[in-house]
Amino acid sequence: MSPWIAVDWGTTALRAWRMSGAVAQECRSSAEGMGKLAPGAFEAALLRLIGDWLGRERTEVVACGMVGARQGWREAAYRAVPARPLDAPFLTVAPEDPRFRLHIVPGLSQADPADVMRGEETQIAGFLASVPDYDGVIGLPGTHMKWARIAAGEVRSFQTCLTGELFALLAQHSVLRHGLGAGWEDAAFVAAVAEMQAAPDSLMAALFSLRAGGLLGQLSPDAARARLSGLLIGAELAATRALWQDQPVTLIGAGTLTGRYRQALQLFGQASSLTDAEAVTLAGLCAAYRKLQESPR
Amino acid sequence: MSPWIAVDWGTTALRAWRMSGAVAQECRSSAEGMGKLAPGAFEAALLRLIGDWLGRERTEVVACGMVGARQGWREAAYRAVPARPLDAPFLTVAPEDPRFRLHIVPGLSQADPADVMRGEETQIAGFLASVPDYDGVIGLPGTHMKWARIAAGEVRSFQTCLTGELFALLAQHSVLRHGLGAGWEDAAFVAAVAEMQAAPDSLMAALFSLRAGGLLGQLSPDAARARLSGLLIGAELAATRALWQDQPVTLIGAGTLTGRYRQALQLFGQASSLTDAEAVTLAGLCAAYRKLQESPR
Repeated sequence: MSPWIAVDWGTTALRAWRMSGAVAQECRSSAEGMGKLAPGAFEAALLRLIGDWLGRERTEVVACGMVGARQGWREAAYRAVPARPLDAPFLTVAPEDPRFRLHIVPGLSQADPADVMRGEETQIAGFLASVPDYDGVIGLPGTHMKWARIAAGEVRSFQTCLTGELFALLAQHSVLRHGLGAGWEDAAFVAAVAEMQAAPDSLMAALFSLRAGGLLGQLSPDAARARLSGLLIGAELAATRALWQDQPVTLIGAGTLTGRYRQALQLFGQASSLTDAEAVTLAGLCAAYRKLQESPR
Repeated sequence: MSPWIAVDWGTTALRAWRMSGAVAQECRSSAEGMGKLAPGAFEAALLRLIGDWLGRERTEVVACGMVGARQGWREAAYRAVPARPLDAPFLTVAPEDPRFRLHIVPGLSQADPADVMRGEETQIAGFLASVPDYDGVIGLPGTHMKWARIAAGEVRSFQTCLTGELFALLAQHSVLRHGLGAGWEDAAFVAAVAEMQAAPDSLMAALFSLRAGGLLGQLSPDAARARLSGLLIGAELAATRALWQDQPVTLIGAGTLTGRYRQALQLFGQASSLTDAEAVTLAGLCAAYRKLQESPR
């Protein structure tokens, strides 16, 4: 198989794999995410990262994520759900450098309630490449958590929650920051999730108590951090319960945050399984490359 | 009556009135709030604002607000509720300048759920100076909204909601900022309040739709701003409903935000009346000065 390049280009990072068929030969990444690049700066950023991977023959580059956003390299129009997570044709861009051609996987949109995703559709496709008959829910923890209902190879509906961003804003910029430590007290997380499960409408009344509890010596800084996370994730689970309850739930992610969602789901009585995010991203980009090879030119 | 000086010293502003008995002769303010002052810088900041009001005889200065916080001029220990909003003795500070003496009104605290206030107790006292028999709820809209249950001249319990701060963080720093205009569409505010009333646990699922609705051309920037405000205030009212429902509600405030709380309460079927914030602040500082005069030296 001919060499090609897989690219995951999000808001904060750019990551590329030098591929031979479905096998990654090398992986590189840089901090030149969409959020840091002016329009017109994308080609140079990509060449800085993988310019030396390009040869005399034109190389196909397949990219997913915010590179296809309005503020990205070129806007790839959303595809409306219900839809297969990936489908040719992709948006093909001819860069100034003749040594490669870029194919951008479009994101998905939903009209009601309004929602959008870019990048997660490729991860979902990567998961479905291994489990094509999956009938259930996929959760993709991150700054913007996505919940997607999957059946018959399609994304039927989905829901984004900006819980991770809200946690970062409150922890770093609000009055609560004065009382948050760097550590973690798991009992406080568990109690906060249980509180939101029991009284899911009480979030707005619970937040300031983190600050007051610290001032009054009732809450340690580490417990406050865990409690803030538990309140927000618990409130998210309460708000999205109809979407995932009593269904198979697969979390695509890595690291601490994904583990916390799994723990919180467990506290809500919901089992879930884990799948590694990088593996499904790459599998999804491989699936996109295969579709590209199959599609008429 | 001898001259004295009333001071409202919050996080972001310092405001002082030159008083003769209960009559304000002059008012000045500066941006030297507690949040901008290092420890040790408070006396100089006050003298910059009102130094020329001081005469040969020692002047009493009565201050409320964050000046009594741990990061303030001197920490004035909280008084636990239930409690009258003001009670002597206050925390008296002897500054380096012998021309004045500072009396700080302490804030109130509540153990369970943990909560604190500094400054609002003085506004409540100012309101009770006119309506001593008030039996109901006082709401004080602001960056941190306070709801206080008042009976028999006491603050029985209270609840802080950081709704205003959350709005500012989301509007200025989150992904939602890209879709928010400077204007206002009232119908979007009304619809969002109604949504939170009907489904008070759905806040975390509703926020991202502001961004997606904008990207999909379904939501104008002005409607998005009004909708964000309506979702947050609506969620706050849902979370605090047990506190204020079916009771007399008085809002102490001024300007747009107070009007929005009043409108949202109305949508929840709850009437409220308005009282001007500056007037009750000054009335509360006057009540504190009277207590000071009555108390043994």
